[in-house]
Amino acid sequence: MSDVDLHPHPSAAAPLPPSPAGRGKAAPLDLVSDFPAIPAGWAYLDTAATAQKPQPVVDAIARGYDRTYATVHRGVYQRSADMTLAYEAARARVAAFIGAQAGECVFVRGATEAINLVAHSFAAPRLKPGDRILLSMLEHHSNIVPWQMVAERTGAAIDVVPLTDDHRIDLDAMQAMIRAEHKVVALAHVSNVLGSVLDAKRATRIAHSVGATILLDGCQAVPRVPVDVADIGCDFYVFSGHKLYGPTGIGILYGRAELLGAMPPYQGGGSMIDRVTFAKTSYAPAPTRFEAGTPHIVGALGLHAAIDYVDAIGLDRIHAHETALVARTREALSRLNSVRLLGPDDSAGIVSFVMEGVHPHDIGTILDESRVAIRAGHHCAQPLMEALGVEATARASFGVYNGPADVDALVAGLERVGKIFG
Amino acid sequence: MSDVDLHPHPSAAAPLPPSPAGRGKAAPLDLVSDFPAIPAGWAYLDTAATAQKPQPVVDAIARGYDRTYATVHRGVYQRSADMTLAYEAARARVAAFIGAQAGECVFVRGATEAINLVAHSFAAPRLKPGDRILLSMLEHHSNIVPWQMVAERTGAAIDVVPLTDDHRIDLDAMQAMIRAEHKVVALAHVSNVLGSVLDAKRATRIAHSVGATILLDGCQAVPRVPVDVADIGCDFYVFSGHKLYGPTGIGILYGRAELLGAMPPYQGGGSMIDRVTFAKTSYAPAPTRFEAGTPHIVGALGLHAAIDYVDAIGLDRIHAHETALVARTREALSRLNSVRLLGPDDSAGIVSFVMEGVHPHDIGTILDESRVAIRAGHHCAQPLMEALGVEATARASFGVYNGPADVDALVAGLERVGKIFG
Repeated sequence: MSDVDLHPHPSAAAPLPPSPAGRGKAAPLDLVSDFPAIPAGWAYLDTAATAQKPQPVVDAIARGYDRTYATVHRGVYQRSADMTLAYEAARARVAAFIGAQAGECVFVRGATEAINLVAHSFAAPRLKPGDRILLSMLEHHSNIVPWQMVAERTGAAIDVVPLTDDHRIDLDAMQAMIRAEHKVVALAHVSNVLGSVLDAKRATRIAHSVGATILLDGCQAVPRVPVDVADIGCDFYVFSGHKLYGPTGIGILYGRAELLGAMPPYQGGGSMIDRVTFAKTSYAPAPTRFEAGTPHIVGALGLHAAIDYVDAIGLDRIHAHETALVARTREALSRLNSVRLLGPDDSAGIVSFVMEGVHPHDIGTILDESRVAIRAGHHCAQPLMEALGVEATARASFGVYNGPADVDALVAGLERVGKIFG
Repeated sequence: MSDVDLHPHPSAAAPLPPSPAGRGKAAPLDLVSDFPAIPAGWAYLDTAATAQKPQPVVDAIARGYDRTYATVHRGVYQRSADMTLAYEAARARVAAFIGAQAGECVFVRGATEAINLVAHSFAAPRLKPGDRILLSMLEHHSNIVPWQMVAERTGAAIDVVPLTDDHRIDLDAMQAMIRAEHKVVALAHVSNVLGSVLDAKRATRIAHSVGATILLDGCQAVPRVPVDVADIGCDFYVFSGHKLYGPTGIGILYGRAELLGAMPPYQGGGSMIDRVTFAKTSYAPAPTRFEAGTPHIVGALGLHAAIDYVDAIGLDRIHAHETALVARTREALSRLNSVRLLGPDDSAGIVSFVMEGVHPHDIGTILDESRVAIRAGHHCAQPLMEALGVEATARASFGVYNGPADVDALVAGLERVGKIFG
């Protein structure tokens, strides 16, 4: 058998897959042709829920199954050793992407599991009655419910940082309210509903000023703004692969090495052990300790390809691209009398709004008839809905494949909604 | 845009993908050409670690990303509604495959997570000091460590059912030792090291005779023998998709409806809630309650395709095929003086052995040079290794793509090992 059959793994060593880099730094992004699941004329504006996949990601996933497939960590044969290298290369790629060390990056199912893992293995053993957890009013349920569960288990209490008038996490209020009882702080880096961008360094400084540990939910941040966890200085950072143009079922927990190293395991099983006997089991070091069972091997390869794709474009450029689309959207929507815009003007790629007298679900349904896909609902952020005084919002969110024509389709669709309900 | 672009999802409604059915019930399986990652002449004998993927599974996964991709449960647009139907159709397909109801099947990352979920959400709230958990000597670490963790947390103790002389779980011994203190029993349906098949109905009757709840680890069973959880009568049944010719990162927890319905959530996050406020959160019913966050959507679609593929062949036929390969292997190996065979003669598709004076890792490495891929090591079953009086074993495990030529390659390779070390 030739080496080509059993030993190849492009993402482990070879040059990057074809990427859109070099198409000119200044030109606006025009990448929709990289995305095979977006048919011509479909305005996909639900990237904050999940991003569509560029061809190199689909190819990396298919190759992982139809060419190089094997298990990791265990095989004594070459194919398995190569797959192990590819899996660990994916971890190293993730680490480089967010300014971490490979050993600080745990593969998880997604951000939700990452937060649950930290709540269970870091917070639960440390919190006691009298301790407090600090969240914000705009958090996703995945950054609320795990903390409620750990609070119930430990007797700790939860406090909530309010929002500014333009719907950002109010860091002045946070500074005023934080105190030594706050052991854990957990905040969204970018709001999934409003696109509000947190000053993550300042939030981290405030948390650390009382000795609190801070976790940042980076789901909407990593696809939209440059992220460097070392520069931010945060303790934990979590995100999902599928919102970063990668596969479903894979995500990342970043944790500072000394924190991960001191944490007990989350799930028990194969691979995460050092030695098992019925009398006594000892555990492997992090990150392996937190990856019980056969991992989502091909998910890691797909995430590697997604990061290659996104990095080749450049997060600065993606952010500028999405900011321009947000500006075009907000400008156009502000001219529609019935529309109330939510969130700050400098939102990162996400625009939430409500229309007088029209339920957001009806907006979404009518827009779908116009080939415009948005999300309508509470966006897994019911406390924020209450704070905004609405039941639900309509949300348009952008990705690298969107362009001005998508914004125009949205606006035309909303004009049609206005006529139907007007 | 045409309906073809946005609304298709073959697995949701359309006929089954091309399958090997109808190739003749009596003929031996000859399916290796369905498996693009197996080059000609490579004897892949590590299916118990992970199965290679047939083309229809790779195609279903690629289609999920490059044609029909969208999120589930949340979208107000047609593509997302269609993907939700496809995701739930996958759940219904899993249920039909194992004789369960769809609402009794929870999508998890894999069997390891499923067992941890049951240990955490079912066992931990019920166990107290004095209670006991009953396992067996041949369990995989994933069916030991989660129970050790819950025992440590609750003060319960663990007992271990010994093996018969031919390395089966000794159900007579189980019957003799079980008592009312045993609240939970967890056993492998098929041993991942030895292929020993449990009499699952009898084990269930014994567990139920003292009121214990029984979980079966079906990882090696579902790809190898027909499984009907209603017929078995067990309370929980778990398996991983990647060992069933499906994608990585997806697996199933089956739980009887009344048990799942009474269990608190495992992870908190989006989708698993009914209503969230900072004062009080209420949860969705099972199985949704146990699927926090965006699920591994495309993993579910791939698992659907894998079950279609396996079911079209038929588990009876697969079992007969693998039994014949095991017989051929054991017969040939029994003629090699240096080889000691482990496990029962009627092992389901798995043959473990040791060679006098040769470490299993060396066997694996030398076989790899002969294009034969086996696994060598403790197979995540260190207590079993101790019981067998070995440090490690060499293990050959079969799948639908293997044939007599693979057995012959293994035997020839072992003869070469014998010469090198002889």
